[in-house]
Amino acid sequence: MKIKLSFSLSFVIVSMLFLFSCANENKTQTGNDDEKIANKEHPKLILTAQGVKDIRAQLGTIPIFDKSLEAVKEEVDAEIEAGIEVPIPKDYSGGYTHSRHKQNWFVLYKAGLLYQILDDEKYAKYVKDMLMEYEALYKTLPLHPKTRSYARGKLFWQCLNDSNWLVYVSQAYDCIYNYLTEEERNKLETNLFRPFADHISVDSPQFYQRVHNHSTWGNAAVGMIGLVMDDEELINRALYGIKDLKLDTTKKDDDGGFLNKDGKAGFLANIEEPFSPDGYYNEGPYYQRYAMYPFLVFAEGLHNVKPELKIFEYKEGVLLKSINALLNLSDADGDFFPLNDGQKGMSYYTNALVTAVDVSYHFGDQDPGLLSIAKQQDKVLLDDSGLAVALGIKNGNEKPFTKKSINLSDGPEGKQGGVGILRNQDIELVFKYASQGSSHGHYDKLSYSLYEKGEEVIQDYGLSRFVNIEQKGGGNYLKENKTWAKQTIAHNTVTQNETSHFTGKYDIGSLHHSDLQYFSSDNDNVQVVSAIEKNAYPGTTMLRTMAIIKDEDFEKSFVLDIMKVTSATANQYDFPFYYFGQVLQTNFKYNSPEILKPLGSKNGYQHLYLEGSGKASDENTKFSWFSNDKFYSLTTVTNTKDELIFARIGANDPEFNLRRDPALILRAKKSKNRTFVSVIESHGSYSAVSESALNSKSNIKDIKTVLDSDAYTAISITTINGKTKLFITANTNTSKEVKHNVKIDDKNYEWSGSYYFN
Amino acid sequence: MKIKLSFSLSFVIVSMLFLFSCANENKTQTGNDDEKIANKEHPKLILTAQGVKDIRAQLGTIPIFDKSLEAVKEEVDAEIEAGIEVPIPKDYSGGYTHSRHKQNWFVLYKAGLLYQILDDEKYAKYVKDMLMEYEALYKTLPLHPKTRSYARGKLFWQCLNDSNWLVYVSQAYDCIYNYLTEEERNKLETNLFRPFADHISVDSPQFYQRVHNHSTWGNAAVGMIGLVMDDEELINRALYGIKDLKLDTTKKDDDGGFLNKDGKAGFLANIEEPFSPDGYYNEGPYYQRYAMYPFLVFAEGLHNVKPELKIFEYKEGVLLKSINALLNLSDADGDFFPLNDGQKGMSYYTNALVTAVDVSYHFGDQDPGLLSIAKQQDKVLLDDSGLAVALGIKNGNEKPFTKKSINLSDGPEGKQGGVGILRNQDIELVFKYASQGSSHGHYDKLSYSLYEKGEEVIQDYGLSRFVNIEQKGGGNYLKENKTWAKQTIAHNTVTQNETSHFTGKYDIGSLHHSDLQYFSSDNDNVQVVSAIEKNAYPGTTMLRTMAIIKDEDFEKSFVLDIMKVTSATANQYDFPFYYFGQVLQTNFKYNSPEILKPLGSKNGYQHLYLEGSGKASDENTKFSWFSNDKFYSLTTVTNTKDELIFARIGANDPEFNLRRDPALILRAKKSKNRTFVSVIESHGSYSAVSESALNSKSNIKDIKTVLDSDAYTAISITTINGKTKLFITANTNTSKEVKHNVKIDDKNYEWSGSYYFN
Repeated sequence: MKIKLSFSLSFVIVSMLFLFSCANENKTQTGNDDEKIANKEHPKLILTAQGVKDIRAQLGTIPIFDKSLEAVKEEVDAEIEAGIEVPIPKDYSGGYTHSRHKQNWFVLYKAGLLYQILDDEKYAKYVKDMLMEYEALYKTLPLHPKTRSYARGKLFWQCLNDSNWLVYVSQAYDCIYNYLTEEERNKLETNLFRPFADHISVDSPQFYQRVHNHSTWGNAAVGMIGLVMDDEELINRALYGIKDLKLDTTKKDDDGGFLNKDGKAGFLANIEEPFSPDGYYNEGPYYQRYAMYPFLVFAEGLHNVKPELKIFEYKEGVLLKSINALLNLSDADGDFFPLNDGQKGMSYYTNALVTAVDVSYHFGDQDPGLLSIAKQQDKVLLDDSGLAVALGIKNGNEKPFTKKSINLSDGPEGKQGGVGILRNQDIELVFKYASQGSSHGHYDKLSYSLYEKGEEVIQDYGLSRFVNIEQKGGGNYLKENKTWAKQTIAHNTVTQNETSHFTGKYDIGSLHHSDLQYFSSDNDNVQVVSAIEKNAYPGTTMLRTMAIIKDEDFEKSFVLDIMKVTSATANQYDFPFYYFGQVLQTNFKYNSPEILKPLGSKNGYQHLYLEGSGKASDENTKFSWFSNDKFYSLTTVTNTKDELIFARIGANDPEFNLRRDPALILRAKKSKNRTFVSVIESHGSYSAVSESALNSKSNIKDIKTVLDSDAYTAISITTINGKTKLFITANTNTSKEVKHNVKIDDKNYEWSGSYYFN
Repeated sequence: MKIKLSFSLSFVIVSMLFLFSCANENKTQTGNDDEKIANKEHPKLILTAQGVKDIRAQLGTIPIFDKSLEAVKEEVDAEIEAGIEVPIPKDYSGGYTHSRHKQNWFVLYKAGLLYQILDDEKYAKYVKDMLMEYEALYKTLPLHPKTRSYARGKLFWQCLNDSNWLVYVSQAYDCIYNYLTEEERNKLETNLFRPFADHISVDSPQFYQRVHNHSTWGNAAVGMIGLVMDDEELINRALYGIKDLKLDTTKKDDDGGFLNKDGKAGFLANIEEPFSPDGYYNEGPYYQRYAMYPFLVFAEGLHNVKPELKIFEYKEGVLLKSINALLNLSDADGDFFPLNDGQKGMSYYTNALVTAVDVSYHFGDQDPGLLSIAKQQDKVLLDDSGLAVALGIKNGNEKPFTKKSINLSDGPEGKQGGVGILRNQDIELVFKYASQGSSHGHYDKLSYSLYEKGEEVIQDYGLSRFVNIEQKGGGNYLKENKTWAKQTIAHNTVTQNETSHFTGKYDIGSLHHSDLQYFSSDNDNVQVVSAIEKNAYPGTTMLRTMAIIKDEDFEKSFVLDIMKVTSATANQYDFPFYYFGQVLQTNFKYNSPEILKPLGSKNGYQHLYLEGSGKASDENTKFSWFSNDKFYSLTTVTNTKDELIFARIGANDPEFNLRRDPALILRAKKSKNRTFVSVIESHGSYSAVSESALNSKSNIKDIKTVLDSDAYTAISITTINGKTKLFITANTNTSKEVKHNVKIDDKNYEWSGSYYFN
């Protein structure tokens, strides 16, 4: 309801602003042409006629642009040389016809740009010739022969890829629009573009008419070709969805997500719903990166052709904010944190992020930090925004893009939990207390992953999929994504009674989200995030407080992790650490079975081998390991009833779809309330060339839970040389202003704020 | 016998040359001083008085030298600031006292250099003060309290480390020799250096009196302090071993090597025996790197102080040749191939190789390729040779160091097999047909490993040890080194009847070596090495021919592997491929057990889990995998009786000492003669940022053994697009000049040389 209201309001504002917009935006040479006539000019969508002029004037003097242009020219020239191939659709992702049509959309797009920038007709002719081949083919095409998709395309096995094609090809068409005769344009529009847009929208409402990254592509595709063709109906269909269409709200897609639970659809709804006011995208950074391109290019097109919509100001400028959020959801190397379904290795070096960075710079406030990322990317878009970035770099405006600790709310109104990222020196901790994350969400409430200098220390497994590698399940999601990767035990959080959060049910998970207790990054030395989850296991509450602490008695910043579980009933809690590398030492005895058996039979446990198990040490269990030429130590509070389990991923995996990565699992049986308290240290280094091991041992003598009440949990940390630090977190009354007074061992501690550390 | 003769001969030559040497070498200012007086000058050992002059004259104008000096100065200044620590010896490798004394030897050495170069007495005083502390400590020391070594030191748990100390500290002493009073020198020599030299030699003959890298350190230590002290007795003890001492020739050391089987000892014998005429060191590159430093610095000292020995011309200049061999035993990143016991990651960036490269440049023929390696190392020695390199770089003489295919013979006379390295485009194959490799040898006759651009494709496991990481068995060899790493099944060669070569017995292995059939690298497109092993399994002969072939129908160079096994009896042959990464596809069916059991009970098999097994396909078995963002395919000739086993390292490894790496094993049961024929292709690539998979499939339709006789084996390779290539290898009469005429399928093939390819 609320959302609908803001919709209408912004529309009113937009309409009012419309009157003033012509004078400022998209000026044409003649000056007194009205907006309609201005829109007749091509290109106008992304590259603009004015942009073309500016670029031509600067060519040869803007190194990063010139280099990008040269690369594109080489690529397109080679394609022209090789000749046009428009095969009859046949394959899944990774197969020949899929790859070829995908290649074609990029080449068409690039050849269009080259025609405009280099003013060389050979590129326009190439685009025209290939489009005519598509025209000839498309009108003959039935549905794609592969049947696995919930929404089959015609060129590709899924409408999603057809939409990808149209998003790019619209731009190519815009670039050669004026090169074509009216007759040629009519032919293309009648036989190719309009039926193409119809197929992915009105003919495929289960794909188009929803809030989902797939639909965003669909909306953008329809809208962009609509903008080029000046077709208001298509533009409206893009912005607001298929008119008067109501779908069955209980239906689900291939991934188990609801097709359209609340009836929302169209590009604006797709901005409204998945983005939080901080710009966090509810499916996580991997899918945000994927959705980013259609969001931004269609927005760019709308900005250029329909400036009256003020699309970049929509929802308080969330599109540009989301770029900043996305850049912050990457590690020190620029790799995105693999929250939910995310393939590791995806980073801000991907082309979608070249678009994002250039667009954010050009249409945002020219953040000089973005120029340093653009420089790392070493390429720019061949359009107005790329030119702006190239000029910024050329003029030496670049500054480092500094990623700090940041809290990103989730939910359309920022009220459905979020993701907290703590950064201190080289240590980064990503703490997830978000909502379900749509159909790509994992059952991983209050889970975290830990990085050092861009290397994974405690990993999030990511997805189980080899994207576009045909030999692995056609490049699509593998069944282990559901049986393993989404399950709670695959994550660094508590699994109760060997069952996943919300019993692994999407319908239930989608109803809930965790809640922030507090986030504090004011103190450079102590960064803390604390959140609570009450619904993952009915009757059980999990409250997790995680801190990165820089302390003079430690070589590097360390992680303090307090997971307070309270329950009405006695349960088994499994608390894993997905470390990497080689075991160095333990302070507990364990047995190693000669034969490896799965740790359980379902909920992900069937994929873990039991490699060793033992009883924990009293008070503190210590475990140290060696990874990436660095030493790591875990110190965790235990009692002698606790079990420790060495596990390894890979059981019941006959296709070798899973990585054989290790874990240490702390298991507490028959426990009602249990507060897991751990410190993870990174320390020292090893050089394989000097063969010297520096500072290879933990700096911690012991850690103790000195107080654990409803209101407070207090942990003492004593170093090897006998210095003791105390950390107290408020479990209630966590707001910044509250004054606290706690007595521990007859000593009073008074402070203001969410936590105490000294 | 032969060796003794050449010994005497060189001595005669040396004696003759002695008359001419004074005029050319080690000139002193006065000019008419005799050689004895010249030797009184200090420093003279490595850094020379003339070198000091030259360096001081160039300082500030030789960037790489200036930078190296600055780094050393910073390090030593910090140590001086921190104060001297000379603790009572207590720990094994990795422990505090071990690390501290190790640190001290480096600091003493560096402070000595700084005193000379910077002419700043604070460094001399620091060296003197610390040496005096050592003097005070040493005379009180019993044997080191740790008892594990066959030859315990006093400062360290093993004489080896005591020797390391003295090799470096001799140089420090030389640098401050003239700064000390005669009384101070007497004190140090009487209470520290002479007893120190005696302890590691006459008091530890089991360590000193043998041919072994340990002894080389011992010899160099004794010799270098002898040179500084001008003590002919110590110098002779260094060069020729302890006079008139005979050891029990049947005794063995900790590693299972004979202590002194043939009675040879001393530095010259240590050059004579382990190096082949090509400069290959019989224990392999990892230990060569370790032994290199004492070889070269003592040789430098001898060259400077006793030029009449012409040590760099000894055994046809083998010391300098060995540096070239060692550099060639590294992959594209400079990492040494882990032949025998070798820790991965050791590379030519290690300090010993800075010495090697600088010495080779200075005392060799100023190979400009060495300058490019020095530049990569980014540091030089702070002595005469470092100056020469710095000047070479400064003067722009640097050229790339190009590693080509190379064959390195093994054995003192080059007649005990060898190592062949094939290089073609980015593919490197290391084929080992050497002798046992002393006590660090593995039972891996005719094994190989494969690299692409410095990344392992088919790995050699290396050693099982975490050098200097105290938590892992004190940083020493782990028992899995013997039970796993040395065993045949741990290597990419044939294991017969689940038993290692020579039944894993060192005494037997040491008697034998494989023999080269031929090595051919004349043709840029086809590089081949072929060798035969007749003793690993009595009654069985293995003849392996490996080629890297560049062919226009393939994207990258591929490996052809022909392993011809002939036996009088029926055996089981296991033929593993230690690949890395994820399984993509197989063309055979296999079962995956739910429970993992070890593959066997001994000879390394107890450390492998059986992860899957199936029957091979008829004619060709195909297996493809994905690693480091590249695709790999194996095509191997099989019949339906063959088994295929997916295995993983890690069974019976309760301390997690082994890496959980995978293997595919081809198993042929009840076979007498069997020729294993395989092609390994690297192809295509995957980008995690563009998510595009290029050329992800094998280019091979089939491979066939079209002829396999005593005299010839011929393999046809047919590509997907139907082109067929034929490779014929001569199994006898392999010399380059021989003409061959073979009829296959009624067609005659005529050629000269060891193989045919077309």
